[in-house]
Amino acid sequence: MKKVRIGVLGAGRIGKLHITNLVQSVPNAEVAAIADPFLNEETVAFAESLGITKCSKDPQDIFSDDTIDAVFVCTSTDAHAEMIMRAAAVGKHVFCEKPIHTDLAKIRGAIAAVEQAGVKLQVGFVRRFDHNHKKVHDVVASGRLGKPHIIKVCSRDPDHQPMSYIATSGGIFMDMTIHDFDMVRYLSGSEVVEVCAFGAALSGAGYEQYDDADTAVIMLRFENGAIGVIDNSRASHYGYDQRTEVHCDKGCVQVSNDLDDQAMISSAEGVEVAKPTWFFLERYNNAFIQETKDFVDAIQNDTDTLVGAKDGLMPVAIAMAAAKSYREGRTVRLDEVLG
Amino acid sequence: MKKVRIGVLGAGRIGKLHITNLVQSVPNAEVAAIADPFLNEETVAFAESLGITKCSKDPQDIFSDDTIDAVFVCTSTDAHAEMIMRAAAVGKHVFCEKPIHTDLAKIRGAIAAVEQAGVKLQVGFVRRFDHNHKKVHDVVASGRLGKPHIIKVCSRDPDHQPMSYIATSGGIFMDMTIHDFDMVRYLSGSEVVEVCAFGAALSGAGYEQYDDADTAVIMLRFENGAIGVIDNSRASHYGYDQRTEVHCDKGCVQVSNDLDDQAMISSAEGVEVAKPTWFFLERYNNAFIQETKDFVDAIQNDTDTLVGAKDGLMPVAIAMAAAKSYREGRTVRLDEVLG
Amino acid sequence: MKKVRIGVLGAGRIGKLHITNLVQSVPNAEVAAIADPFLNEETVAFAESLGITKCSKDPQDIFSDDTIDAVFVCTSTDAHAEMIMRAAAVGKHVFCEKPIHTDLAKIRGAIAAVEQAGVKLQVGFVRRFDHNHKKVHDVVASGRLGKPHIIKVCSRDPDHQPMSYIATSGGIFMDMTIHDFDMVRYLSGSEVVEVCAFGAALSGAGYEQYDDADTAVIMLRFENGAIGVIDNSRASHYGYDQRTEVHCDKGCVQVSNDLDDQAMISSAEGVEVAKPTWFFLERYNNAFIQETKDFVDAIQNDTDTLVGAKDGLMPVAIAMAAAKSYREGRTVRLDEVLG
Amino acid sequence: MKKVRIGVLGAGRIGKLHITNLVQSVPNAEVAAIADPFLNEETVAFAESLGITKCSKDPQDIFSDDTIDAVFVCTSTDAHAEMIMRAAAVGKHVFCEKPIHTDLAKIRGAIAAVEQAGVKLQVGFVRRFDHNHKKVHDVVASGRLGKPHIIKVCSRDPDHQPMSYIATSGGIFMDMTIHDFDMVRYLSGSEVVEVCAFGAALSGAGYEQYDDADTAVIMLRFENGAIGVIDNSRASHYGYDQRTEVHCDKGCVQVSNDLDDQAMISSAEGVEVAKPTWFFLERYNNAFIQETKDFVDAIQNDTDTLVGAKDGLMPVAIAMAAAKSYREGRTVRLDEVLG
Repeated sequence: MKKVRIGVLGAGRIGKLHITNLVQSVPNAEVAAIADPFLNEETVAFAESLGITKCSKDPQDIFSDDTIDAVFVCTSTDAHAEMIMRAAAVGKHVFCEKPIHTDLAKIRGAIAAVEQAGVKLQVGFVRRFDHNHKKVHDVVASGRLGKPHIIKVCSRDPDHQPMSYIATSGGIFMDMTIHDFDMVRYLSGSEVVEVCAFGAALSGAGYEQYDDADTAVIMLRFENGAIGVIDNSRASHYGYDQRTEVHCDKGCVQVSNDLDDQAMISSAEGVEVAKPTWFFLERYNNAFIQETKDFVDAIQNDTDTLVGAKDGLMPVAIAMAAAKSYREGRTVRLDEVLG
Repeated sequence: MKKVRIGVLGAGRIGKLHITNLVQSVPNAEVAAIADPFLNEETVAFAESLGITKCSKDPQDIFSDDTIDAVFVCTSTDAHAEMIMRAAAVGKHVFCEKPIHTDLAKIRGAIAAVEQAGVKLQVGFVRRFDHNHKKVHDVVASGRLGKPHIIKVCSRDPDHQPMSYIATSGGIFMDMTIHDFDMVRYLSGSEVVEVCAFGAALSGAGYEQYDDADTAVIMLRFENGAIGVIDNSRASHYGYDQRTEVHCDKGCVQVSNDLDDQAMISSAEGVEVAKPTWFFLERYNNAFIQETKDFVDAIQNDTDTLVGAKDGLMPVAIAMAAAKSYREGRTVRLDEVLG
Repeated sequence: MKKVRIGVLGAGRIGKLHITNLVQSVPNAEVAAIADPFLNEETVAFAESLGITKCSKDPQDIFSDDTIDAVFVCTSTDAHAEMIMRAAAVGKHVFCEKPIHTDLAKIRGAIAAVEQAGVKLQVGFVRRFDHNHKKVHDVVASGRLGKPHIIKVCSRDPDHQPMSYIATSGGIFMDMTIHDFDMVRYLSGSEVVEVCAFGAALSGAGYEQYDDADTAVIMLRFENGAIGVIDNSRASHYGYDQRTEVHCDKGCVQVSNDLDDQAMISSAEGVEVAKPTWFFLERYNNAFIQETKDFVDAIQNDTDTLVGAKDGLMPVAIAMAAAKSYREGRTVRLDEVLG
Repeated sequence: MKKVRIGVLGAGRIGKLHITNLVQSVPNAEVAAIADPFLNEETVAFAESLGITKCSKDPQDIFSDDTIDAVFVCTSTDAHAEMIMRAAAVGKHVFCEKPIHTDLAKIRGAIAAVEQAGVKLQVGFVRRFDHNHKKVHDVVASGRLGKPHIIKVCSRDPDHQPMSYIATSGGIFMDMTIHDFDMVRYLSGSEVVEVCAFGAALSGAGYEQYDDADTAVIMLRFENGAIGVIDNSRASHYGYDQRTEVHCDKGCVQVSNDLDDQAMISSAEGVEVAKPTWFFLERYNNAFIQETKDFVDAIQNDTDTLVGAKDGLMPVAIAMAAAKSYREGRTVRLDEVLG
């Protein structure tokens, strides 16, 4: 079967990650070209080391290449929606990093373009492809424990990002919790109808100067009646803490963290076990490969992607509702945000 | 040193538990008398088997016995406050099962009586004496992890109580979450200032006919800035699920459940481990003994009890605020309830 | 039903433990009398605090008391066999601490006396009554995993005994591993036919001066074909390490240690969990109660005890074979020892 | 820095694994050529898909290619030693799958050739590169727990190999335990001086017809005084069970299995956790990559390989001693085998 030819838009950290995975781990894909407005020698050398010779600064070089079937949108967030629309306009399938945009109208525009063009769209909510969270999902979806009652997500980053990053991040709910909003939709199999968020700047790192929080707890109510709860911290200090749990009619399924190793060291001083893996690159390495494979397979087999248009829209809307709840000190219905 | 002589008011299930523990496990106490309005032959036989010969139907027999130093109030909840006041009036120390009352004015009256009389009061929030939760508390209180940011409590009962019990229980927040409200105060070392509660009747067992919930998630904000979250279910089906966790400035301390055993059974069919212990009598057996010892020690050594008057008042107020939040669909400040 | 009246011979540490358990936790037993050649005021006071008024220095006071149904033999080891024979001679049931003797002829004499008299004998291999090891036994005995192939026991004491104790202990195999020899018989449901023991004095504490080992590994072959292995250390330093495992035809059952608590403390420094409980009094507290209850029940219901005469003989024989293997550097058949 | 050019001898399952890893995961290596006497179209296509165009049936094509720096010996076991000698003769470094040979003289000949030629030799004991076992090694080697006393290895394959394989496997000690013999040397940091092995054919699969065992326990004594113990089963049925543990002067370090996931499913039926990963390809996937990287780095940096000549010789000698012990029913000194 013909390989899926891919153009990658944006070759920063996440772009390079996808390129490497496509080349090394997705046999039915090939990276045909890279376009990055900040293209430099280091990136060209990186590309060459992987056998990719077509590099440019202009995304149009990819859009106008008729041999290219699909694009990976790994540019800065504010260009995502535009890239989707340009790709759709020339009939190319799109894998887009999250979020599509922080403006719902822009997201809707991009989705409309994709639907009109009949191309596939997959949004990069990578955690759905992690073996642990997928196991929780699969057990819930199998129905063996009955209907879900409580969806719990613990999500803590290992350490603070620079304050310069925080300044333009869009706030904890849009920047960090957005992954968890996707996760609770995935695990519950239902849509969020209302949200109440508590947040606080407790770490002393300076989030308060941006009216932002480093610590948050968010409650959610789902269409199917289930209740969700997420707790977030910007700095766990012990590693990437990513636990999910669903309590159902007949029991509970939960996953703890992947650890650096399975060692236990016992002495008079105490008993020591391994830390969780440090951050998302270590924890979700295989999930990044898997989401890429699934996207390429969806193109080859002409099936739906596992994270589609609505999955690109809803977490942004929930993040907006959570931020509104946090600012206004009240429960916010999704309707208020979705219009 | 002279043994502390105790009169037990109410010899139902919890009364008998305290009597047995006092006799068998608290060497510096003796049960001098039992008073229970429903006294029957079975209870008299139970008492005799433990060497207790003074049984009556009238609590006055205990209040008027000058050789008795302290009472255990194990009557029905609506009589707790009155019993405390009568005990205080005759200078007897009081151990009172929770809650003191569901009316804050009554609680305040009882507390005022106790304070005026200068007698000791301990409220039966037994979980503070559990080795696991105490470990979480002690690590937080030691300051080694810095200030608390997130206080998490998971609390699920193994199975539904009869609907006849639910009808008069006062609702999930007053009947069940009240223990968790005490726990978050204990673990955070701070007072709750506002509460937001989501609840739902999802089990099909019929809670909705009493406007009650079988499933709840409650967010709390503390004076020290920390955020708390509790999740409750009336029916886990796999046992008593009681986990606590505090995420702090420098890390996290958490406890999982005590299990029936440490066995792991591995075969082609899968890997099986033990369930959590079934319910509170199994899980908190040692904690019940410990709270009794501590109360008796506090009397002998004339020290403060570990769960005092304010600890009797605040969880009831938080439960009222949570119920109000649940009914009104909004965040409720404790001020609104405490006046 | 009439309570079983018990006389306790020897009121040292283990005697006092059994007395306390009998009084507080075995409702169908009563301690009628205590005899201890070293009886002192402290022991009399201990007895009185539990309501036991008959104390003497002469065991004959117990043997000649016709109201006493059974004795607990908690004397020094060298007197065990004689006490059993005297008890049997006057028709009293016997609970005897392990080992009955370190001379097989003496054990056989005691067993013959017991059998002739038709009284019950239970030997104090307490670990059979532990919830964890019993679970392993029960899973194996149920047959759900098929026949046992490998029986594994890890048994490490928390710290060295005084060298004065080691000097007269009889050596690691007779003093310490003897419990494990009982355990492998219990778990395998089969008799040991040959043994090979490696031992070494590695700790620097001085075991070599008594030709004794502080570290040992012992392989065993069972009649049913299974292979066993035990590893021992006199000093784990992290607590009492007592793990058992049976690998069977269709899978494996194993138990890890009971821990002080279920806490996990995570920070930049690492992740810390609780130690195993410190020593046998903490670990096997409930097992001590259970073995006592079972003995008393066996008398009341006239059923077999769960740890009988052969269970008193065989671990001693295996210990002798292991010691011989250790000294002679070869595999030793049980026949060589049993004659 | 110039890439290390590698010729792969033998392109069966393990050869293909190394080729894939070298191409995809070892940037400073390139696979220059493949030689396999059974070369077929499928292998040529496999090679081409990885950009390798030089394939032949004759190893001489590799030995005579002066641009090739090193060879991977992945042929059938009986050809290993000859391939090493031919590679050494033409000055090529050698990575050789285990065992070098089952005849000590042949191994010694190969080692002598390598040493004379001054080329590097690495033997494929892949488990040394596993994150778990390496952690145990590193903790022991760091000395923080003092000297090792007990080295324990549990090693069970998930299921029986075909009896046709068993017929020519060389027996459980040479075929399976050989990895564990390497492991105990690695973990103890010391040489084995004597061995005692118990084995049995218990599964009913038919090992007895080859005088072979499906179940074994092996005790080992080390030069540094430590005692080792290995337990083996050919068929765990629940997955690849690979646990290691070292008890030292001041405490213990142990590793349990990597699992398929971190999920726990709790319901009235029980609590279920994930199985160990199924077999060595799943469990040691990263270790295979790591050993390859380390070999290539050793060549580029001219450092010693981590698994050298003596590591190729000693496990075979220990396996011979264990087999002899099993057959003769006695402890065997390594001297008897090594001469």
